[in-house]
Amino acid sequence: METLMKIWIAILIVLPAVVAAQSNPAAQAAREWRLQHERAILDEFVELLAIPNVTSDRENIQRNAVFIMRMMEKRGIAAKLVSTAGASPLVFGELRTPGATRTLLFYAHYDGQPVDATEWTSPPFEPVLRTRQIESGGVAVPLRSTSSSIDPESRLYARSAADDKAPIVALMAAVDAIRAAGLKSKSHIKFLFEGEEESGSPHLEHMLASNKGLFSADLWLVCDGPLYQTRQQSIIFGARGIATFDITVYGARAELHSGHYGNWAPNPALLLARLLSSMKDPENDRVIIEGFYDQVEPLSARERQAVVDAPDIDAALMDELWLGSTEGRPATLNELITRPSLNIRGMASARVGSTATNIIPASATATLDVRLVKKMTVQRTLDVLRAHLRRQGFFVVDAEPTAELRRKHARVARLVLLRGAEAARTSMDLPASQEVISTVESVRGRAVALPTMGGQLPLDAIQRATGAPTIVIPIGNHDNHQHSFNENLRMQNLWDGIELMAALLTMEVPAAR
Amino acid sequence: METLMKIWIAILIVLPAVVAAQSNPAAQAAREWRLQHERAILDEFVELLAIPNVTSDRENIQRNAVFIMRMMEKRGIAAKLVSTAGASPLVFGELRTPGATRTLLFYAHYDGQPVDATEWTSPPFEPVLRTRQIESGGVAVPLRSTSSSIDPESRLYARSAADDKAPIVALMAAVDAIRAAGLKSKSHIKFLFEGEEESGSPHLEHMLASNKGLFSADLWLVCDGPLYQTRQQSIIFGARGIATFDITVYGARAELHSGHYGNWAPNPALLLARLLSSMKDPENDRVIIEGFYDQVEPLSARERQAVVDAPDIDAALMDELWLGSTEGRPATLNELITRPSLNIRGMASARVGSTATNIIPASATATLDVRLVKKMTVQRTLDVLRAHLRRQGFFVVDAEPTAELRRKHARVARLVLLRGAEAARTSMDLPASQEVISTVESVRGRAVALPTMGGQLPLDAIQRATGAPTIVIPIGNHDNHQHSFNENLRMQNLWDGIELMAALLTMEVPAAR
Repeated sequence: METLMKIWIAILIVLPAVVAAQSNPAAQAAREWRLQHERAILDEFVELLAIPNVTSDRENIQRNAVFIMRMMEKRGIAAKLVSTAGASPLVFGELRTPGATRTLLFYAHYDGQPVDATEWTSPPFEPVLRTRQIESGGVAVPLRSTSSSIDPESRLYARSAADDKAPIVALMAAVDAIRAAGLKSKSHIKFLFEGEEESGSPHLEHMLASNKGLFSADLWLVCDGPLYQTRQQSIIFGARGIATFDITVYGARAELHSGHYGNWAPNPALLLARLLSSMKDPENDRVIIEGFYDQVEPLSARERQAVVDAPDIDAALMDELWLGSTEGRPATLNELITRPSLNIRGMASARVGSTATNIIPASATATLDVRLVKKMTVQRTLDVLRAHLRRQGFFVVDAEPTAELRRKHARVARLVLLRGAEAARTSMDLPASQEVISTVESVRGRAVALPTMGGQLPLDAIQRATGAPTIVIPIGNHDNHQHSFNENLRMQNLWDGIELMAALLTMEVPAAR
Repeated sequence: METLMKIWIAILIVLPAVVAAQSNPAAQAAREWRLQHERAILDEFVELLAIPNVTSDRENIQRNAVFIMRMMEKRGIAAKLVSTAGASPLVFGELRTPGATRTLLFYAHYDGQPVDATEWTSPPFEPVLRTRQIESGGVAVPLRSTSSSIDPESRLYARSAADDKAPIVALMAAVDAIRAAGLKSKSHIKFLFEGEEESGSPHLEHMLASNKGLFSADLWLVCDGPLYQTRQQSIIFGARGIATFDITVYGARAELHSGHYGNWAPNPALLLARLLSSMKDPENDRVIIEGFYDQVEPLSARERQAVVDAPDIDAALMDELWLGSTEGRPATLNELITRPSLNIRGMASARVGSTATNIIPASATATLDVRLVKKMTVQRTLDVLRAHLRRQGFFVVDAEPTAELRRKHARVARLVLLRGAEAARTSMDLPASQEVISTVESVRGRAVALPTMGGQLPLDAIQRATGAPTIVIPIGNHDNHQHSFNENLRMQNLWDGIELMAALLTMEVPAAR
C-alpha cells in the first residue's frame, strides 16, 4: 500500500510540479538561488531551530523574536517587535513596493508545542539532519558537510522544523532569490510572525485590533499546517473553530466498596457512559444534541465541488492507522471535516487494570471538544450542551457541587467550558482566492483546494480584527510529527516552499471582494 | 441525623444487649473476666498489632503466625503452623473436649490490607488508643495508663485492629474466661487463622483439601467483617462471589489530532461508553446482558424474610454519603446485595481536564466487577459477557490485538478475566444456623441475620474443600475504616466480641443438616 502510494505520488504530483515550476519566473529564480545556497539556507534554519520556543519560556521566546527581526533587517525589510503586557511579541516586517496599491501579508508563528525531551530521539532544540524518517531507519548526517548539496529526502529534526518555523525561513530565502534575480513584488508585502499560536493566540485579536494600520492588508496568507497526504500542495480556505468542555458527574462523596454498595450507590462511570452515548446516534454517527447543527452555514457549490475533487485518501489512511471502520460513512474524511464534530478527548473515573480496586468511583470526568463550523458560536454550543445534560436528568452546575446540592438532586453534572474559538471560511469564489489557486498551481502543479481544515487556526480572530480574507498555505510534509515528539521537515518540502513563497511574493493581488 | 441514629442505637440495641448478656453464663463469665483484665487483654492485642502483616512481607507474616501459635500454646491449646510452598502459614489450634461428638471451627485471618503510611495519622503498626474517632476529635491516650479500666468508646488505631486480628484476641480472652469460670465447651474446638485472606486466599482451598482430617468440622464460624450500621450484631450466612474483568476497545494505532480526524476515526471512548451503557437498563438498573441472571439461585422464604426484617438504613446512608438517589429502587440496599451486580470499578481513556490534549484516544479501558450470587459460575459469567460484546458488534480477543486484526474488524475489544471466586450461602434453615442465631441473640440481643454479605469471603473455597457449612460472625464496628487508612476498633466492640465468642465456644452444635 505504501509503495503504491509512492508511485502514485511520483506520477501524479511530483512530475507535473517539476514542469510547472518552470512556468513561474519567481519560482524559477528561487530554484536557481536555492541550488546554490542550500547550505546557507540550512545553516540559518538550524540557528533559528536551536532557540527553544515553548511559549512559557519567556526569555527564549524573546530571543526567537529578536533573531527573526534580525533575519528581516539583514534583508532590508523594515522590522520591529510589537508587544503588549503578558504576550509574546509579534515580529512585524514590511517591504514597500513603489506604486503598489494592494498589500499582501504573510503570517507564520515562531512558537512551538511543549516538548517532553525524554520522548525525542535527539534533543528537540538540537537540530539533527537524518537521511530519512527515523521510522524508516534514517541516520544522522553531519550538518556541516563538505558536500554542498543536500539529499532532498533527508529530514531535519527539531521542534518547529515544520510547525511553524519552516515558512519563516522559506519566505526569507524567497526574498533573497527574488532580489538576486532582479524581480519585484507587485504589492506591498508585510510579514507577521506570532509567538503564541500554540497557546491559542490569546492576545492576537487584541493586538491586531489595536494596530489596525500596521496590520492592514488586502489578503492574509497564513503559512501553517501540512501538505495533503498525497504530498500535493494544499490550499485551505478556512478552519474549524473549537469549544472544549469538561463534564464531571458524581456518585457518593467518596469511593465505596463495590461489594457492600455496588448497584445501590449510583455509579458515576456508568452515568457518564450513558450521557456520552446519548450525544451521538450510533447508526449514523450524527450528533443528536438538540439544536447542535442549527447555526451551521452550508457549503457553497464551489466548496462542495472542491471536497468532491480532493483525492480520496480514506482507504490508505485506514490501512496506515490500523482502522477497520470509520465514522459517518459513506462520507469521506474531507467531507466530514467540513461538518461540526463532537469528540471525546479523554475519560477518567477511578483506576483500571492492575491499579483498579474493588470500589464504586466517586466521580467520572470526560473532556470533549466540539469542532465548530462557520456561523456556530461557542456560547450557543455551550447552551445546547447544557440543555442536553438537563434533558438527560442532570442538575447542571459550573463549579464543584456542595454536599447539600448533591443530596438534593438525583444526578448532578458539572459542565465547564475550557476554551472556545470560532470558525472562519474565506469564499473560494473571491478573485483573490482564484488568483492564489492559479499562482500556487503555476508552481506546484495540481493543488488540493479545500474549503476548510479540520483543525483550528486563529483565522476568525484575524478576520474580525482586520476585515481581511485569510487563505492557508502550508509547506510542511504531512508526516512531520507536528505537535508530537520527533517533529521533522522533509528537505524537499523546504525547497518547494521557497519556490512557492517566491511565486506568492510576486503575485498580483486582486480586489479583495 | 447522626444524633438521631445514636439515640436509636442506644434504645434499640445497647440496652437489650446489656440485659441479654446476663442470660448466657459463658458471656457473663467473659464479662467478669474482662472487667478485671482489660489492661492485659489490650496489652496482648497491642503486641500482636505491632507486627506488620502485609502479605508480601514474608518475614513479618511468619512472626505473626508464630506469635499467634504462642498465644494458643500459652492457653494449653495444641497449636501448629501448616505450611505449603509460597503460602503464608495457616495457624491451627485444637481444644479436645472429652466425650464431644461434634467439632466447631473458628476462622479468622491475621494478614491485613497493604498500607500507605503517609495517609495514616499515626503509623499503621504502632497502635494508638484514642479517646474517640479521629474525625470526631479523638486524641491519643497513654497505652500504659495507671487506671485499670478503659473507656469503651475509645478506639484502638492500627492496621488489622478490626480486620481481622480483633477476633483472634477476643477468642483467646474468651478461652481464658471460660476456663477461669470452670465452664466447658460442648464440642471439640478448632482454630484456624489464615495469612492470605486479603490477597484472595490463593492457597486456602488447596491447603484445606490436602489436610481434610485436620480441618474437618461440623460448622465453621468465620469471624470477619463489621457489625451492622446500627451497631446491632450481624450474622451473615453467605458472601457474594466476584469476577473482575478488563475491557479495552480500540481506535487508531495511536492518538490522532481531533481536528484533522475527529468524527472520522472511531473514538474508542465513545465505543466503550456505548458498550457499558448497553449492559444495564437505565429504567430499572437491571443488568440486560443476555443470560446474566440465568444461574441465580433465588432466596428461600426465610432468607427473603430476613432481608425484610433487617433495619432499613438507606435514608441515613444516603445522607451520610451525599446521595440524591440510589440504583434499583424501590429495592433496599439489603435486598440489592442478595442479587448479582455489575459495577464499573474504573474507566480510562487518554487524559482529562488540564492534561487533556486535542486528540482522539487510541484506546479506552474499563475494569468491571460482577458480584456473583449462589450458583453463578465465574466461567459462565465470562461467557455471557463475551457473547454480549459480540452482539454489540465487537470482535473479542483476550490479548493485545494485532494490526492485521484491527484492520480487518470494524470493532475490536479485548476482554480479560482478572480474578474469579464463587459465591456461597449457608441455609438459614439448618439447625446449626438456628442455634447460632439463638446463641448470638442470647448475648447480644436482637441480631441482624442476613442471607449474604455484599462482599466476597472464601466461604465457597472452605465449603468445597471441607463440606462444612460456614456462618460469618463479625465483631468490628461498621465505621472501622477497614481496608483504608486509620483502621480502628472501638473498644466496646472488643469487649462485646469476647462475650460473644465465649457463648459460641460453649454452644451446642446440632447435626449439620
